[in-house]
Amino acid sequence: MTDTQSAIKDRIETFVMDKIVPFEKDPRLGPHGPTDEMRRELNALARAAGFFAPHVPQKWGGMGYDHVTMAVAFEAAGLSPLGPIALHCAAPDEGNMNLLDKVATDRQNQRWLKPLAAGDIRSCFCMTEPGGSGADPTGLLTTAQYDGDDFILNGRKWLITGARGAGFTIIFANVPESAGKPAGATMFLADMSTPGISVARDIDTMDNSFTGGHGEVALKDVRIPKEDVLGKVGEGFRYVQVRLAPARLTHCMRWLGGARRAHNIATDYARTRQAFGKPIGQHEGVGFMLADNEIDLQQSRLMIWWAASLLDRGENARHESSMVKTAVSEALFRVADRCVQILGGLGITRDTIVEQIFCETRAFRIYDGPSEVHRWAIARRILKPDNRGLPR
Amino acid sequence: MTDTQSAIKDRIETFVMDKIVPFEKDPRLGPHGPTDEMRRELNALARAAGFFAPHVPQKWGGMGYDHVTMAVAFEAAGLSPLGPIALHCAAPDEGNMNLLDKVATDRQNQRWLKPLAAGDIRSCFCMTEPGGSGADPTGLLTTAQYDGDDFILNGRKWLITGARGAGFTIIFANVPESAGKPAGATMFLADMSTPGISVARDIDTMDNSFTGGHGEVALKDVRIPKEDVLGKVGEGFRYVQVRLAPARLTHCMRWLGGARRAHNIATDYARTRQAFGKPIGQHEGVGFMLADNEIDLQQSRLMIWWAASLLDRGENARHESSMVKTAVSEALFRVADRCVQILGGLGITRDTIVEQIFCETRAFRIYDGPSEVHRWAIARRILKPDNRGLPR
Amino acid sequence: MTDTQSAIKDRIETFVMDKIVPFEKDPRLGPHGPTDEMRRELNALARAAGFFAPHVPQKWGGMGYDHVTMAVAFEAAGLSPLGPIALHCAAPDEGNMNLLDKVATDRQNQRWLKPLAAGDIRSCFCMTEPGGSGADPTGLLTTAQYDGDDFILNGRKWLITGARGAGFTIIFANVPESAGKPAGATMFLADMSTPGISVARDIDTMDNSFTGGHGEVALKDVRIPKEDVLGKVGEGFRYVQVRLAPARLTHCMRWLGGARRAHNIATDYARTRQAFGKPIGQHEGVGFMLADNEIDLQQSRLMIWWAASLLDRGENARHESSMVKTAVSEALFRVADRCVQILGGLGITRDTIVEQIFCETRAFRIYDGPSEVHRWAIARRILKPDNRGLPR
Amino acid sequence: MTDTQSAIKDRIETFVMDKIVPFEKDPRLGPHGPTDEMRRELNALARAAGFFAPHVPQKWGGMGYDHVTMAVAFEAAGLSPLGPIALHCAAPDEGNMNLLDKVATDRQNQRWLKPLAAGDIRSCFCMTEPGGSGADPTGLLTTAQYDGDDFILNGRKWLITGARGAGFTIIFANVPESAGKPAGATMFLADMSTPGISVARDIDTMDNSFTGGHGEVALKDVRIPKEDVLGKVGEGFRYVQVRLAPARLTHCMRWLGGARRAHNIATDYARTRQAFGKPIGQHEGVGFMLADNEIDLQQSRLMIWWAASLLDRGENARHESSMVKTAVSEALFRVADRCVQILGGLGITRDTIVEQIFCETRAFRIYDGPSEVHRWAIARRILKPDNRGLPR
Repeated sequence: MTDTQSAIKDRIETFVMDKIVPFEKDPRLGPHGPTDEMRRELNALARAAGFFAPHVPQKWGGMGYDHVTMAVAFEAAGLSPLGPIALHCAAPDEGNMNLLDKVATDRQNQRWLKPLAAGDIRSCFCMTEPGGSGADPTGLLTTAQYDGDDFILNGRKWLITGARGAGFTIIFANVPESAGKPAGATMFLADMSTPGISVARDIDTMDNSFTGGHGEVALKDVRIPKEDVLGKVGEGFRYVQVRLAPARLTHCMRWLGGARRAHNIATDYARTRQAFGKPIGQHEGVGFMLADNEIDLQQSRLMIWWAASLLDRGENARHESSMVKTAVSEALFRVADRCVQILGGLGITRDTIVEQIFCETRAFRIYDGPSEVHRWAIARRILKPDNRGLPR
Repeated sequence: MTDTQSAIKDRIETFVMDKIVPFEKDPRLGPHGPTDEMRRELNALARAAGFFAPHVPQKWGGMGYDHVTMAVAFEAAGLSPLGPIALHCAAPDEGNMNLLDKVATDRQNQRWLKPLAAGDIRSCFCMTEPGGSGADPTGLLTTAQYDGDDFILNGRKWLITGARGAGFTIIFANVPESAGKPAGATMFLADMSTPGISVARDIDTMDNSFTGGHGEVALKDVRIPKEDVLGKVGEGFRYVQVRLAPARLTHCMRWLGGARRAHNIATDYARTRQAFGKPIGQHEGVGFMLADNEIDLQQSRLMIWWAASLLDRGENARHESSMVKTAVSEALFRVADRCVQILGGLGITRDTIVEQIFCETRAFRIYDGPSEVHRWAIARRILKPDNRGLPR
Repeated sequence: MTDTQSAIKDRIETFVMDKIVPFEKDPRLGPHGPTDEMRRELNALARAAGFFAPHVPQKWGGMGYDHVTMAVAFEAAGLSPLGPIALHCAAPDEGNMNLLDKVATDRQNQRWLKPLAAGDIRSCFCMTEPGGSGADPTGLLTTAQYDGDDFILNGRKWLITGARGAGFTIIFANVPESAGKPAGATMFLADMSTPGISVARDIDTMDNSFTGGHGEVALKDVRIPKEDVLGKVGEGFRYVQVRLAPARLTHCMRWLGGARRAHNIATDYARTRQAFGKPIGQHEGVGFMLADNEIDLQQSRLMIWWAASLLDRGENARHESSMVKTAVSEALFRVADRCVQILGGLGITRDTIVEQIFCETRAFRIYDGPSEVHRWAIARRILKPDNRGLPR
Repeated sequence: MTDTQSAIKDRIETFVMDKIVPFEKDPRLGPHGPTDEMRRELNALARAAGFFAPHVPQKWGGMGYDHVTMAVAFEAAGLSPLGPIALHCAAPDEGNMNLLDKVATDRQNQRWLKPLAAGDIRSCFCMTEPGGSGADPTGLLTTAQYDGDDFILNGRKWLITGARGAGFTIIFANVPESAGKPAGATMFLADMSTPGISVARDIDTMDNSFTGGHGEVALKDVRIPKEDVLGKVGEGFRYVQVRLAPARLTHCMRWLGGARRAHNIATDYARTRQAFGKPIGQHEGVGFMLADNEIDLQQSRLMIWWAASLLDRGENARHESSMVKTAVSEALFRVADRCVQILGGLGITRDTIVEQIFCETRAFRIYDGPSEVHRWAIARRILKPDNRGLPR
């Protein structure tokens, strides 16, 4: 860490612990995340503290951090599940901003990225489908038919984070072959108020840190003009990768902060709670768990910084981010699980934030591709005849 | 399994899957378990099916199963978190009935065990204290002072399962030394309506299958006559063991059913859900998880039956139940965790019962003593100079 | 355990610890196991103690134990790697005797089983091939061509336990299609002195408990008359299963004893060796390992007894033995690994038998099918539409 | 990695794979490592290739690498267990050179460091004692009594790597309180030919990569003049730390190379060996192991580089090296264990180097402090009230 990064870390950590953590008991925080009113209140605090949208290029009003500095800032923000919401660097908005900045036209960005980057609206990313296209993209069932200068979209999207209350969405749909026109998986931009788009239900899940929760989105004869195609027709899968490699990493960064918070709580508890004649931390059974936590946290941090530095050097780091996501999501879950165990009965209650962090990190092992899909991708690369292995 | 046990298994499984599982979506099922109205409805179904209170001696209206038959019946009941509630063999009532039957006077049993066994009332077990006596009994802070022929109890109990709505409670309190009278940890029986007993709050937790949830119970100048002492003054810790060894096992039995249910759901999903060109179960990454599930389930079952058969032979099986609880709670959690992973995005939603089973089995690793306390007890026994080891 | 089994256990354990363990430092014990001279000496001791060939039917001079009693006896014998050699129930002889008894003609048994059961000769099982047919039987490259009333065998076998010094062998070879005659994988019986059979080399391996080590066997124009076919032409794979399901289990039984021996040594060490002011066993870090050992050992024992009881009831237990082999081999390796760790520097030396048991149990995770092949077989069964799951 | 480091890596890897690996089958390589003749031959090759003593300051004839560059070079050297011997950066010489350079007088260095750095002689480090001072330094039983201007040493040392054939040794002994003279744990320098020093036996161990093996060293009335005290009387434990923190890291660096070699062999095998109709690497069961290997290797590398960079910045990195040693030794063992499993039957033979690497990495989990001692040290630091945690 440079001195600048170290100062950023300290300031954001202080901000989150002092100003944001108290909101964790706010009654506006429900099973589908905070209300938008609460979100705006948190945004205002972060803006006042000088840490709004750290990842957004300065021309769109953000702080323009490189990926390694983002790693430092996001970990600090992640000390509270509400921290990334406050700093406006939570999923899916954060990844959407990144994707728009890289792919969208200036007109599109004026219309959607600008208010999104300012926190005036939220967004969602309509990709996953029920029983279909999750980790395996060939299952994409949503279609976008040509209709003059427009497209007509039909389909059903599922586990769409932040759908309820979003201002606009990016929709992933398949353009069928049609008279020599471009076809294939394609991304579209659309206001959520577009006729035919509706949030069919809010899905109850084990996590609850995302504003707007996870919705099921119905797309029925949704008309989208061709100028609202994001990038080019048929290039959808390429943009998914553009979005995903960094988005996986930023997930890791934020939840690293969460796991560290749980570890800090467990450490304090282990220092003070007595059992069998001494603080429980002095029992090796507990002390070893703390030691393993610190190892897991540090390994996770180094993996994140490594992949972030590759992104900063202009590499796509697709494979490396796959390795990092797998290793870090599993490590952070182990940390959270140990913290629950250290807290004992207290750990299974919602009296501390540890219970929520446990559930969030469990879900993280599935978000952005379950470990099994990543391991398979890693193995395929290793097995290529010309693979030279790491380190390169 | 004998033929009789096999028939019991089949009939209870059919009953639970057909009659009880539909209640899992009942709106009366909240974060603190089913309402008492719902519980009575479930009890009536079980009674009609001929499977009410399988563990209760016949003289109190139950079926008088031995422990191995209980293992078969409870696993079958546990296929739904509501199954043991329906059969009236859920914690803490089940363990309380067992303890009363072994220790209470006939007068006490007429007053408390009889209506409890009949399902007319529920009960709770006021032992654990906040920041104090959990796994380590020396932390017991609740006191019971002699006052003429009565005792005056003061203290605070925490994570008291089923407290809200219970008809009576067993209270664990310390009788201080006083003028040569008997002293030490002691159990008391009291109606929950006794002046001074109140449920201070319902604690939010990661599990939600217990009727009445987990309460915090305040005891303020609670007057209890000496004839409501359970057993003898000063014998409390011995009764804890009388209750705990079988109670740990019955926890294992019930949750084994739950984990098997999750495994069945994951297996069905793995058979049908397609990814990368074939059912996901045909991917080794998923298939191996199913194989490990079946190994974990079978090992758990054998461990339970082993300890149950020791109880049936009249041994106290205190050490063996410690081993079984540790191994089984961790194995069932692994099973549930794999099932979540196999279901992918679906696994983190509440669209299936798997999410709840995951949370319940996580809590189980802490209930009735966290693994660390059990491992320590097991180690102490192994290290004794005269320990001959297993098998004996 | 019945009283009879308990007595068998005690007597064999005493015999092995008193009479056989001293041979573990015998200079005749080399990297490829004991010499045949030493083996005969051990056999004589076991015969004198009344425990020779416990698994062999009484008509062939053995003790005719059922599988559950074998489990008890083999575990006790396995306390020393030399115990099963002494009792003449080591691999591959033990499995070969079982196979011959079930499949061979009386003439074949008089010629081969009788002297084998008496310990006059040893045998080997020529199945695995280099770079070919290991866990996957389709890779079988050794051929047996019809030649009048004889077969001419050619091929190369690898990791053939006990080849050096064996009196005869069972050879697994493929009979190619030929003019309507029976064809397919077939087993043959042949004296090792048959022209064309030679042990090309002794393979250095991490284990060293098998008499004769592991050899590479060359088969060059080996002429075998048709009356020395074991069973029927083309039925080879079926006989492999006949041999393997029990053979996997007996491996588990023997190595369970080995792991228990390591655990006993580690326990003694943990009781006496001081570090940081107390016996190391009183450090939770060590105590927890002992506790996990005992859990792993007991789970392994129960799994073995379960499958053994299925065999005794006449089931083939093919799937169950697959589960047991996978679970037990991995559990015993964990036990041995923990014992090495508890012994610290001593654990990596050959001053105790623990180092050897560690290496043996590592190899066991591969013998008779690596865990991955078993997990896949288990998964396939689970995924069958009509699978009803355990318990049955 | 800088371009310079990348070039160093490539050149050393090529050198080791082309020139050193063929010696792995050299008959002079026995159970106690290579002969000294063979070592000198390897040294000559490394010197010719321009990579001799990379860690040694240039004034003593070495290459003067910083720790991060050492990490790169040692990993490359470690591709063969003989690589560090060839480059003269193997334990214990490497750590001894480091200690002498930091603590010894110029006279001492002229006498011992100079010929050691040149590879003319080898050295050993007499610290560990049988049944006594291993991980716990309070068990130090070897004494050094004042006798005029000399000290008289008596004691017994155990698992002394490289003792047989060493030119000199560093001896760790306790100077008892005596008439106000300095006392306490102290290090001494002595030629192995000093009267009273003898190698009592060569200890058979599971590893075999160290020249001279592991010896038991008897110290009987060994007279050492006061000018051969290394540093100051009573400062022994401080020097242990000076030696250990980097020595733990260099162990990690070398064995990282070994584990990578095993992974490369397993990868090649997984690409070519067929089973069930395709290369085994295309089975997820094997592919996932390769993926986990690559994750473990990369995490290990990052942990090593992190601690090395702290050393290069002048920090003592004592705690960090403890974390790194624990995490890396366990990760590399997992890698080696998976490689054995991937190779199947081949993996348990000595036909590949994987078997040896498996045994070496097992021993590594105990060398320089077993994981349990490190975890405890890490926990103690975490639990300190003023601990601020990582990252700092």
